[in-house]
Amino acid sequence: MSSSFGRLLRLTTFGESHGKAIGGVVDGFPSGVRIDEDFIRSEMGRRRPGSTPLGTKRNESDEVNILSGVYNGLSTGAPIGFMIENRTQISSDYSEIEHKYRPGHADYTFDAKYGIRDPRGGGRSSGRETAARVFGGALAKLFLREHGISVSAGVVEIGGIKAENYEWNPPFPSPLYAPQCDALDKMLERIEEARRASDSAGGVIECRIEGVPAGLGDPVFDKLDAALAMAVVSIGAVKGIEFGAGFSSTEKRGSENNDQMRAEDGRPVFLSNNAGGILGGISNGNTILFRAAVKPTPSIAKEQLTITDRMENTSISVRGRHDPVIVPRAVVVVEAMAALTIADALLLQRAYER
Amino acid sequence: MSSSFGRLLRLTTFGESHGKAIGGVVDGFPSGVRIDEDFIRSEMGRRRPGSTPLGTKRNESDEVNILSGVYNGLSTGAPIGFMIENRTQISSDYSEIEHKYRPGHADYTFDAKYGIRDPRGGGRSSGRETAARVFGGALAKLFLREHGISVSAGVVEIGGIKAENYEWNPPFPSPLYAPQCDALDKMLERIEEARRASDSAGGVIECRIEGVPAGLGDPVFDKLDAALAMAVVSIGAVKGIEFGAGFSSTEKRGSENNDQMRAEDGRPVFLSNNAGGILGGISNGNTILFRAAVKPTPSIAKEQLTITDRMENTSISVRGRHDPVIVPRAVVVVEAMAALTIADALLLQRAYER
Amino acid sequence: MSSSFGRLLRLTTFGESHGKAIGGVVDGFPSGVRIDEDFIRSEMGRRRPGSTPLGTKRNESDEVNILSGVYNGLSTGAPIGFMIENRTQISSDYSEIEHKYRPGHADYTFDAKYGIRDPRGGGRSSGRETAARVFGGALAKLFLREHGISVSAGVVEIGGIKAENYEWNPPFPSPLYAPQCDALDKMLERIEEARRASDSAGGVIECRIEGVPAGLGDPVFDKLDAALAMAVVSIGAVKGIEFGAGFSSTEKRGSENNDQMRAEDGRPVFLSNNAGGILGGISNGNTILFRAAVKPTPSIAKEQLTITDRMENTSISVRGRHDPVIVPRAVVVVEAMAALTIADALLLQRAYER
Amino acid sequence: MSSSFGRLLRLTTFGESHGKAIGGVVDGFPSGVRIDEDFIRSEMGRRRPGSTPLGTKRNESDEVNILSGVYNGLSTGAPIGFMIENRTQISSDYSEIEHKYRPGHADYTFDAKYGIRDPRGGGRSSGRETAARVFGGALAKLFLREHGISVSAGVVEIGGIKAENYEWNPPFPSPLYAPQCDALDKMLERIEEARRASDSAGGVIECRIEGVPAGLGDPVFDKLDAALAMAVVSIGAVKGIEFGAGFSSTEKRGSENNDQMRAEDGRPVFLSNNAGGILGGISNGNTILFRAAVKPTPSIAKEQLTITDRMENTSISVRGRHDPVIVPRAVVVVEAMAALTIADALLLQRAYER
Repeated sequence: MSSSFGRLLRLTTFGESHGKAIGGVVDGFPSGVRIDEDFIRSEMGRRRPGSTPLGTKRNESDEVNILSGVYNGLSTGAPIGFMIENRTQISSDYSEIEHKYRPGHADYTFDAKYGIRDPRGGGRSSGRETAARVFGGALAKLFLREHGISVSAGVVEIGGIKAENYEWNPPFPSPLYAPQCDALDKMLERIEEARRASDSAGGVIECRIEGVPAGLGDPVFDKLDAALAMAVVSIGAVKGIEFGAGFSSTEKRGSENNDQMRAEDGRPVFLSNNAGGILGGISNGNTILFRAAVKPTPSIAKEQLTITDRMENTSISVRGRHDPVIVPRAVVVVEAMAALTIADALLLQRAYER
Repeated sequence: MSSSFGRLLRLTTFGESHGKAIGGVVDGFPSGVRIDEDFIRSEMGRRRPGSTPLGTKRNESDEVNILSGVYNGLSTGAPIGFMIENRTQISSDYSEIEHKYRPGHADYTFDAKYGIRDPRGGGRSSGRETAARVFGGALAKLFLREHGISVSAGVVEIGGIKAENYEWNPPFPSPLYAPQCDALDKMLERIEEARRASDSAGGVIECRIEGVPAGLGDPVFDKLDAALAMAVVSIGAVKGIEFGAGFSSTEKRGSENNDQMRAEDGRPVFLSNNAGGILGGISNGNTILFRAAVKPTPSIAKEQLTITDRMENTSISVRGRHDPVIVPRAVVVVEAMAALTIADALLLQRAYER
Repeated sequence: MSSSFGRLLRLTTFGESHGKAIGGVVDGFPSGVRIDEDFIRSEMGRRRPGSTPLGTKRNESDEVNILSGVYNGLSTGAPIGFMIENRTQISSDYSEIEHKYRPGHADYTFDAKYGIRDPRGGGRSSGRETAARVFGGALAKLFLREHGISVSAGVVEIGGIKAENYEWNPPFPSPLYAPQCDALDKMLERIEEARRASDSAGGVIECRIEGVPAGLGDPVFDKLDAALAMAVVSIGAVKGIEFGAGFSSTEKRGSENNDQMRAEDGRPVFLSNNAGGILGGISNGNTILFRAAVKPTPSIAKEQLTITDRMENTSISVRGRHDPVIVPRAVVVVEAMAALTIADALLLQRAYER
Repeated sequence: MSSSFGRLLRLTTFGESHGKAIGGVVDGFPSGVRIDEDFIRSEMGRRRPGSTPLGTKRNESDEVNILSGVYNGLSTGAPIGFMIENRTQISSDYSEIEHKYRPGHADYTFDAKYGIRDPRGGGRSSGRETAARVFGGALAKLFLREHGISVSAGVVEIGGIKAENYEWNPPFPSPLYAPQCDALDKMLERIEEARRASDSAGGVIECRIEGVPAGLGDPVFDKLDAALAMAVVSIGAVKGIEFGAGFSSTEKRGSENNDQMRAEDGRPVFLSNNAGGILGGISNGNTILFRAAVKPTPSIAKEQLTITDRMENTSISVRGRHDPVIVPRAVVVVEAMAALTIADALLLQRAYER
């Protein structure tokens, strides 16, 4: 497996959904950054099951225990170890899936890869591992804040219902974590429909990063958009990412898609942002903007065809308290991965500043 | 900069479009692989300017000189150094852009990052660097071929014209490198319109990887789709990527989007491929399928507003022999990055095979 | 900081000597390996303070809590998180050194690097971090054992007293963890002299790795000896390493130093082992042999000149329960770093096996 | 294989001794550094065969062709590709060793690892690859020079004859590249004796790095001494390394070995340098000092027992124009690896500077 993310600022994580604990190590974090535990707690809360009325009724504990690397409230430069204990859970919930592969899940591929699998709650492939990402992201945001950089994401589409004409005024409120727009009620309705049908819905998350100076990102392979793409697609359930005009840029002419430039007060200004704030893999000082596609939750009560690990045909109805939609809870995870990526790129760029 | 790609199989590249040469090193390549120089030449030819009547009229030399790592026609396990000389070019073509930033290009961001820039032909940010990727990809394909894995890509959309009801029977012919479908003529027409308007067009490339065994990819951060996303988005002009049903999966219910399973002859079969062949970041044995959005070529003769490196307002009309569309030439580059990623994941998985 | 070691098999650690806990993550560990907790406990015991009558009287808790990656006694391929709680300690022991730099310690360099320092017990630079290395090493040994590879180390010199004519029959007994030889009593005497003088002594540790097949190690930069050198020199207090004949090879003629070869039963046999089992950075099938120089413990009660963090001249007598010699306790740490290095090289080589 | 060295500043190399060329890529090199080609040429000259009357009579071409990354005499931040062509050589010299394994060489281990080997001149395991290191080191020195850091090495022991009471006033003159001392004549004599006996001699190289600020190096695994150890031991023929008092520190008491401190003009001064300028893996501002053991050249005309690749017993007398001692030519290679390591650590530290 590969449980580390980043080049200078590195997040390493461990943990299964029903093991003793999840946690990890944030390494390469600068010294002297004030570790705001209230902020961390509030970030963890945004991801926690039960944080939205849409979600699972499970009551996971997401209380982070910081084990090292902080002294008198400041980071020391040493690795920051952290742990989130898993409260006792009724593992019998998961007895059926010990031998049946849930469609849309990683059960089969984990067996194919490792020959052994912890079936309790999806084990390592459970969304629970994203709690460690959110912690790492919270630290990254504390560092970025000192450099005037902010990361915010919100739901802009649910089950085909698109937010339109919205303004971007984060933080966005629970339960949808979406910018204010006319479509909100329809989105909630779409989720309710899915729930009633014992089914689930997907959606799109938009992320904007403000205050990034021009110059971050490392061509030709570790371009800033390439690094963000890896970061965000590594989140379970994300099936696509696009920057700026993204897939719709393919329908434009070059003259429409290019962001023309003007100088204002001796600084460049772009007349549009089809590039999503990145040119040639390097930030251009404009808002960095991307959208991620989140597939509908694969865990559904509706019956589906599948096989067992003995290659027998069967069917499955995934029981338990599952979310009909995980898109809102993924918002803070997308922010976390973006924040880690930008913080890493910022550190790298500092190494080369003249 | 960051000019290396891969973990075990590593491609490192160098070179500017108008310097002495481009080239690089392929390291971690297995020994004993037959190096088929004809195949390499044919791959290089697919990317070369002038390979399609749609493209630039420049006559770049793409003859690869292999400098090491091959003995008696077989790879030795030693690093494979290679070089492609740049033929003499009229650099005066580029004198205007020495101080003006071309919209949609990396001119401004390179200056912001490095404080110095080789303006001849875009320097390091030129698409010419992709020739080195194609060479690396050709080697990766030779290795994958020995393991029954094939990588093919094709154009499935140009300027909003979508290929539909196509079969996948690669290799696809020049000039469009697209699968046979009714839309081909309209696509060519769309390109011709853009050219006449001194403008350009973008498009979408689909890539399919066949023969990948279940088990490749490393959760939770180096998932196979995450690695492919980084690989492909690192190609200049790519602004988005989606796997399987991708962005359209967000409009589906979970029950529609999950790929249900059956056992046939003791092996799992998926009844659909919305996952694009990857579950939980690990290949599931199905065809790996993704699509990449390629923006319209930013170099256009049409006049555009821009600024100089002294922050003066001005305008620019990019002269020279530029492609109205680069999507067809990017097909082999997408294949190359995909092949490098899969070969790397295959080597890694071999380390853990029981 | 850089708290990760290894390429495929990666140990990441965290923790200060007087924080809540130390611990880490072992990532890239193969699935299906039986995790023998008794063996792990016994390895931890070899490093623990108080494990030898020579050492500190501190009673550190070295009970490891495995938090993930193991299911039904077998590794699952998922990252193995682990934690060792620090028992309550009298931190006042360390109040004097909050502002005085201990000679031979990293107090000054940590301040110079990070601008902030956790002074309690040396913080991150304390030898306590090696407990996490020993845990990682124990796991590596369990994997190596399945491949017939064993790693053993022993003390062969203390304060200038050299073991001679010794046989290598590990495991070596407490307190010295040295092979049986005539010099043992003199070594113990030398330590006792140092203790009586409120001073300390250093020594040399030899390490032998048996059963390594020919072919491990990656020229030209990640040669097996280079990787071992990095691994072992990264242990605090190690000031040198040599392979095979090492520094004494420089006094030999080539004809004496070269290990001549014979074929026996169709397999190569070396008539000597001046190379220490590594040729051209690749294991040659012979026993891998190296020696590491461990400096005398810098913490001594004897008064020494030093400065404060306000650049005032002063002197210091380091109080507390310090070892007059740490060489015996470092034996298992040397083994651990060697085991991690060899296991990593073995995994890498498996990726390329034909 | 692993042909890349460094984390931010990365040298990747390729090439066999008798292939078309050797070369590589220097990536992550800062922009705006003046590339002094005269200096590079003079560094290459120090390593070149024939640079000392002691060495081989082969006349290798070491003219470096810089292919990219430099514009108007300044580095641009882009990867610096470089190539050194191999002049035509009489490969028949090497016909005997195609099937016989030379003792002390990597012939057998390359076969064991790769199953295929370019026998001409040792192929990839030839000392010729160090020319690429020297080029990378020369660039690193140009960068370090801008930061007031200098790296110098010299021969301090040949075949058991030790330089004593020497002053350190580099650069040291050909042929021995040793500091002025009484032992010089005896060293030369020792080499001459070895040559007359168709044999070879080894020696010790000392390296000093001046001007390094306190704070470089990354505990706990990428300590500065650990990184230097890996860098230097990765040079062929190096069998050991020690820092400061090194192996002799093991014979000292802690009170003798600790470098006591005084404040002078508000800055710390060390009263000795047994630590070799590194404490806890971080530079302390003192001169960094290490010594490397170089084994006697394994290529000797004297007859030795060996085997063939068909596991037959035989003997070999290695013909050709081989050096009876390579220690003097290795001096600039040791400097190069040290310079690359320090430059990399300096860049990394800049990322974290407050």
